[in-house]
Amino acid sequence: MKRIAVIGSGLIGRAWSIVFARAKHHVYLFDNQNSAAEKAIGQIEQGLSDLKQYGLIEESPSVVLKRIHACKSMEQAVSQADYVQENTSENLDIKQKVFSDLDLYAPSDCILASSTSTIQTSLFSENLEGRHRCLVAHPVNPPHIVPIVEISPAPWTDSTTIERTYELHKSVGQVPILVKKEVPGFILNRLQAALLQEAWRLVDEDYVSVEDLDKTVKDGLGLRWAFMGPFETIDLNAPGGVADYAARFGSAYAEMMSNVQHPTWEGSLVKKIEGQRRNILPFSRHSEKELWRDRKLMELIAHKRDKHPSD
Amino acid sequence: MKRIAVIGSGLIGRAWSIVFARAKHHVYLFDNQNSAAEKAIGQIEQGLSDLKQYGLIEESPSVVLKRIHACKSMEQAVSQADYVQENTSENLDIKQKVFSDLDLYAPSDCILASSTSTIQTSLFSENLEGRHRCLVAHPVNPPHIVPIVEISPAPWTDSTTIERTYELHKSVGQVPILVKKEVPGFILNRLQAALLQEAWRLVDEDYVSVEDLDKTVKDGLGLRWAFMGPFETIDLNAPGGVADYAARFGSAYAEMMSNVQHPTWEGSLVKKIEGQRRNILPFSRHSEKELWRDRKLMELIAHKRDKHPSD
Repeated sequence: MKRIAVIGSGLIGRAWSIVFARAKHHVYLFDNQNSAAEKAIGQIEQGLSDLKQYGLIEESPSVVLKRIHACKSMEQAVSQADYVQENTSENLDIKQKVFSDLDLYAPSDCILASSTSTIQTSLFSENLEGRHRCLVAHPVNPPHIVPIVEISPAPWTDSTTIERTYELHKSVGQVPILVKKEVPGFILNRLQAALLQEAWRLVDEDYVSVEDLDKTVKDGLGLRWAFMGPFETIDLNAPGGVADYAARFGSAYAEMMSNVQHPTWEGSLVKKIEGQRRNILPFSRHSEKELWRDRKLMELIAHKRDKHPSD
Repeated sequence: MKRIAVIGSGLIGRAWSIVFARAKHHVYLFDNQNSAAEKAIGQIEQGLSDLKQYGLIEESPSVVLKRIHACKSMEQAVSQADYVQENTSENLDIKQKVFSDLDLYAPSDCILASSTSTIQTSLFSENLEGRHRCLVAHPVNPPHIVPIVEISPAPWTDSTTIERTYELHKSVGQVPILVKKEVPGFILNRLQAALLQEAWRLVDEDYVSVEDLDKTVKDGLGLRWAFMGPFETIDLNAPGGVADYAARFGSAYAEMMSNVQHPTWEGSLVKKIEGQRRNILPFSRHSEKELWRDRKLMELIAHKRDKHPSD
């Protein structure tokens, strides 16, 4: 079993601690805020109980929890680590300082991975001696429920680092994918941005309400996308596969999206969308609904595992 | 119970027959190809058996099937109908001729709805006496499994027609949404087009493989979108809701997508994507995989109903 250091004990750091500990690795959790890591242990226990309830861990929460250790210093957390998963603020100066420290304290063959969603590996690793062992392993919140991990190396990240990170995430039950070249937003947020920009425009130009647009996805498009990707979807939607689909619909889709101007997300448009959302979900129920979302995700993951063990 | 005429007995027409018949309406099915409607009855029986297996109909298939009647002529099918769901070829001349006939044969208060995904209501209804009772009710394939229905009226469709169509689809268990103004692709295919265009570009420019992009959706983005729309998703992803999300990420998303050139779906790019898909799924398994998709959809719908009766 490996020794995994998790740096930062916020939502993402706690979720990663669960991911690695339930796969029987030992987790060394550090947070530079005084006693934050110790406090995080209690929240992690709650997360493990929730997973247990949905059949998503086999051991008891207390057994898994015993493999998670709160550390007093970064040095203590990483000095014997095989792999570091960093989860500090989305701020380049902070990332550079943290990775500089990690490069100093971690053993020379330890991989240094960041959970960042906005900062490219090349920006926080360029001047480090150990820059060949740095990369991004970007999760979707929360990673102990949603399995995708986007692995995005810098041009100088060595192939062993990439392969070992890929294999580690695969072995703990996550679904790693490789972002071959650095690109803002990686893959997932670029796809989300493309769809969202059109969604905002359709509401801005009053073609549809916020509620109806959401239904179009959750009772239509999103049902397929919960178990097939967009390419698999269109491949199966034409008798001759994706080439046939492109021949049938490619020009119509291109025409549909040509000359489309996407509005900026500000001013009256934000008020319009925010207003419609608050009619559907008052702020008083916002955090309750976040818990609902996580339960729904756990139920869906349990359903996918149960019904389709081979997927 | 209402009398529903279904015109065209292809995949969509057969699926609509199931939708209305399982909701206890009588369905009158016509196809201008000789004996096609009679043959369709057998295929519909298979569809009903599949639904029964997943607990998605309560009655036995044979009981539901008794409410579906193959008709010898369009006149016979529609002469006493309350609602017509048309499913002929995606060709404007054909749609215009069919709707002209429907307007002639159907009772004056009967609604005339088309399943078209590409032809606006105003184009096939403009010159009809009964154009006020025409609209599009666009399903996603197959509508007896996927519940979304996009209702897209012409400027001259009267509000009673829109409301009655909305209520009918809601009452049979579909999820109707209103497209307030005509727009190519309606809502669902525009959202799909936006995401697909970025997906094709990311593969074209070699940021990611087809398989990894699909994983990004089915093991990431698509899990949420199976039970939440994109607005609900971002509303719950920022403590202050969608306005907070816009303030945090709006400019990053806009920047991410600015100056992006989307390639046309042709030539070597089609070969690249088709080639990667055929490595994953050889053509010999293509139709088997279509059945797999429909089973997965039925399982997912059954899961959603079972776990979340209030949704």
